[in-house]
Amino acid sequence: MVLRPRNKRSKTSEVADEADSAIASGHVTRQGGRSWTLSAERRVDYDVALVDRIFDLANPTLASSVVAGRSDKARRFVVLDRNIDYLYGQSMRAYFAHYEVACEYLSLEVSEQRKTMESVMRIVHALDRFGIERHDPIVAIGGGVLLDIAGLAASLYRRATPHIRIPTTLVGLVDAGIGVKTGVNHDQHKNCLGSYHPPRSVLVDRTFLATLDRRQLSNGLAEILKLAIVSDRPLFDLLERHGRLLLDERLQGRQGETGDLVALEVLERAISGMLGELSGNLWETSLERLVDFGHSISPLIEMLTLPELLHGEAVALDMALFVIVSHQREMISSTNRDRVLRLIRELELPLVHPVLRDVSVLRRALAETTRHRAGLARLPIPLEIGSVCFVNDVSEDELLIAAKELRELGGYDA
Amino acid sequence: MVLRPRNKRSKTSEVADEADSAIASGHVTRQGGRSWTLSAERRVDYDVALVDRIFDLANPTLASSVVAGRSDKARRFVVLDRNIDYLYGQSMRAYFAHYEVACEYLSLEVSEQRKTMESVMRIVHALDRFGIERHDPIVAIGGGVLLDIAGLAASLYRRATPHIRIPTTLVGLVDAGIGVKTGVNHDQHKNCLGSYHPPRSVLVDRTFLATLDRRQLSNGLAEILKLAIVSDRPLFDLLERHGRLLLDERLQGRQGETGDLVALEVLERAISGMLGELSGNLWETSLERLVDFGHSISPLIEMLTLPELLHGEAVALDMALFVIVSHQREMISSTNRDRVLRLIRELELPLVHPVLRDVSVLRRALAETTRHRAGLARLPIPLEIGSVCFVNDVSEDELLIAAKELRELGGYDA
Repeated sequence: MVLRPRNKRSKTSEVADEADSAIASGHVTRQGGRSWTLSAERRVDYDVALVDRIFDLANPTLASSVVAGRSDKARRFVVLDRNIDYLYGQSMRAYFAHYEVACEYLSLEVSEQRKTMESVMRIVHALDRFGIERHDPIVAIGGGVLLDIAGLAASLYRRATPHIRIPTTLVGLVDAGIGVKTGVNHDQHKNCLGSYHPPRSVLVDRTFLATLDRRQLSNGLAEILKLAIVSDRPLFDLLERHGRLLLDERLQGRQGETGDLVALEVLERAISGMLGELSGNLWETSLERLVDFGHSISPLIEMLTLPELLHGEAVALDMALFVIVSHQREMISSTNRDRVLRLIRELELPLVHPVLRDVSVLRRALAETTRHRAGLARLPIPLEIGSVCFVNDVSEDELLIAAKELRELGGYDA
Repeated sequence: MVLRPRNKRSKTSEVADEADSAIASGHVTRQGGRSWTLSAERRVDYDVALVDRIFDLANPTLASSVVAGRSDKARRFVVLDRNIDYLYGQSMRAYFAHYEVACEYLSLEVSEQRKTMESVMRIVHALDRFGIERHDPIVAIGGGVLLDIAGLAASLYRRATPHIRIPTTLVGLVDAGIGVKTGVNHDQHKNCLGSYHPPRSVLVDRTFLATLDRRQLSNGLAEILKLAIVSDRPLFDLLERHGRLLLDERLQGRQGETGDLVALEVLERAISGMLGELSGNLWETSLERLVDFGHSISPLIEMLTLPELLHGEAVALDMALFVIVSHQREMISSTNRDRVLRLIRELELPLVHPVLRDVSVLRRALAETTRHRAGLARLPIPLEIGSVCFVNDVSEDELLIAAKELRELGGYDA
């Protein structure tokens, strides 16, 4: 029998739980007789590691992440993208069998249209049947959409079940997979419902990209380009010099050392930059986020054109438009404007779309972003390449003119 | 035009948002070339205030909480229990009209059976139609069930929309309404889905109790008794001396000063004690929670007997059972055991229930609690009155014997 007498805790106490690497503390202050203020702090830590070939039997990284030092027979719930199951299911099952982790697998067909609360509830039902124990992590393997859905299910189940993220797309590797946001769409509102739920750890395995669609690679490069424009000029230069090679080689460095070094440097810079941006503002207490560049009008554009545009493609349209706005406001030179536009095209991303001719769409997109950002548009606009400022007064007409100019610029080689 | 150049943030940065009184900071450390640790901290503050007659036109407290110092014309979304709308809807509408807060009201019929994700989604749809702005708080008015559902909707909407809690039942005033937990049931699992979502503030108005069912008062007194047993002997003494008076007067102090002083002291001690327990462990990073006393087997009992038992009634059964276990293990004297049992009865709460004769129910309840508490039962057992210890080795047979002894004790006056 464990017998541990505990009298009233002192007013300030601190508790830590190894299993979750979260630490919390707090206290209550009383004003007069009938008013209290509760103050509490919470610390969150999680690791992101670049690891090649996680299902290789000789590589114990995944097994030790999943079991996390517990010696008892581990049972784990794995939720994964159906495509990943098709491509890697056999080696994944062999891997977990080899390391004696008894897994139940839920293979889901996901898409932006199926990114709904119904999909979250499917995972919840399966977790329930499995009888998951608190603090045992769910293992989520897939692209950004799958990780967002599975992360929300984990977040809701028992108010927070830990999860391990294994992104398998480029968007996942550098963006959706390494942060703490979870979410599903609701009506035409992208990621309208969700949570901030830090993963226990993230394993970033770029060898998944070997089987990824070329269009999905461009999709991810859009997020890398975004980060380069707002905060990392050397990364922009790398993309300018090697973007096409990265696409051709799927970041696998097939043509020898140069390609490999470039792919790794791009991934490392992208992950470092993204984590740096996230870390100071993990719960979005500030609504001026550099990484919202490309995400001002794109959420609505993406939803309205479903399933036509991938996330990164809508982001590219948004970036192109606001680079023109930036140039019109004399915040970026025409040289740098054209470099950005050329690079978007080089990465096989779109620059224009018919929906941007519709002033009512632009008006609605600005209004929704403004509501989402608490009454101010807080639109990130590039100041040349590598830095950003925020403006609140862009009108739908200004965007309409920018879209027109974008179409007229045509070749972007000027 | 707001123009604020922002180069790369420094690696450690801190952002604060007045609107949400949340502060966050964080940083990234890099191990070798290919591994990062993101560490972030978040601070949360919220106020709990005892305020009488919040809808009195002469009382500006509610209006200033809801508008929170913003000078622009406030639009607010109010979600409330249909019974409260029936009883107080007219004065509430007059109040907000008087203070020029334009409100949209969603009046919900709630119950433990309707505490589901479907109810959450009803609120979400209405929030969407209303077009709520980020950082504008949702106002939630009702008992524990309503606050749990509305809190979860707030938590999910845009990954965290602020909310103000106005509890209207005794359980809400001293327990469900003043913490940060939100939740809905799923299948037979109580509060299986939810979040930790601190309110912006809580207004505790005991005059709502004037219209509350006597049975609902007992329901709330069960949670106060729980707190007294685990951490506050003077509160236990107060309940022993004045429990019946509190019930008769609905904590309104009708029979003059004594009743009023007692009611206020009981509420203040209960709120102080609960906030103190919560503050050090707001996100339940520790699973040894004093306030889980009475909540070991009761979640399943409550779900299995729906809609027969109120939450506090199931909690009372659980407390009675574990007080017997405590006595069998010589951790509480027979005098104190009988004081607890007598007080449960005095507060018009049940001590026994036929479902406790079913050993398979007891086994399942222990198994679910153990899964919920990460593999150990961590059962809080009273050590006399005012303190607790945690045990892991209580079997369903021990509970079966305790339930039998409870029935045999009969009068509890020995």
